[in-house]
Amino acid sequence: MKRTCFADDPCPIARSLDTIGDWWSLLIVREAFAGKTRFGEFQESLGVARNILTDRLKKLVLEGVLELVPAADGSAYREYRLTEKGRGLILVLTALSRWGGDCAEWKLVDGRTEQPVGLELRTKDGRKVGVKDVKLVLAGRASRSH
Amino acid sequence: MKRTCFADDPCPIARSLDTIGDWWSLLIVREAFAGKTRFGEFQESLGVARNILTDRLKKLVLEGVLELVPAADGSAYREYRLTEKGRGLILVLTALSRWGGDCAEWKLVDGRTEQPVGLELRTKDGRKVGVKDVKLVLAGRASRSH
Repeated sequence: MKRTCFADDPCPIARSLDTIGDWWSLLIVREAFAGKTRFGEFQESLGVARNILTDRLKKLVLEGVLELVPAADGSAYREYRLTEKGRGLILVLTALSRWGGDCAEWKLVDGRTEQPVGLELRTKDGRKVGVKDVKLVLAGRASRSH
Repeated sequence: MKRTCFADDPCPIARSLDTIGDWWSLLIVREAFAGKTRFGEFQESLGVARNILTDRLKKLVLEGVLELVPAADGSAYREYRLTEKGRGLILVLTALSRWGGDCAEWKLVDGRTEQPVGLELRTKDGRKVGVKDVKLVLAGRASRSH
């Protein structure tokens, strides 16, 4: 099945989806956040076919989500690391994780204090807004999310 | 290409991806947030083939993301509406939108005050944490996101 290209779509959601590629790519990014850096590590933890993994890693590097760097241990290997752009996907992963239900195996914490960190919707002056109280405004049209 | 099934995956991210289905499904949900309710409206705004749209809408209803309800205007039509579960995807869409770059055409606002609303990472006591300052903790292992 040929995937439709959303790269030129005016909507940032569609463009993001195009950049990410497919579900495998998001799971590769999840593994990178969990500290995986090598082809073999990704393959082992995801159980994904080599050709699919090769293809998705290549696309993620091309899109600037991952970068290939010399191995930290000085060996001849090269490692995949999240770029700053790639690290920006933590919000997407956290939102997906929250929607999928709480899971003791997956937690976002403050790197310094180890305190759990959650995703919240807030106005610029810091007021918390519930998921049910927001509405989406598109160019020239508006609609409530409930 | 047959998609791998992540429905029984212990990771909530993988399960969410399985429930959502594919990119088209997320764009259908985006349109539903923007007020679209009918098959023809989705087709017109997304430019998606009828058979794909039929299939994705069916899956979204099966998964409890959308529900089929009698048309608000009392006609014989039935309309697709976001369920509470479906409305929960606003965080995923907002995270994708933010990652895709700012876009004047797409804005999340407080339904009452019309104030712009943004996605933030906060600790339980309300302290704001930057995307670069969080780390992900998985069962028995931890790693920095940078």
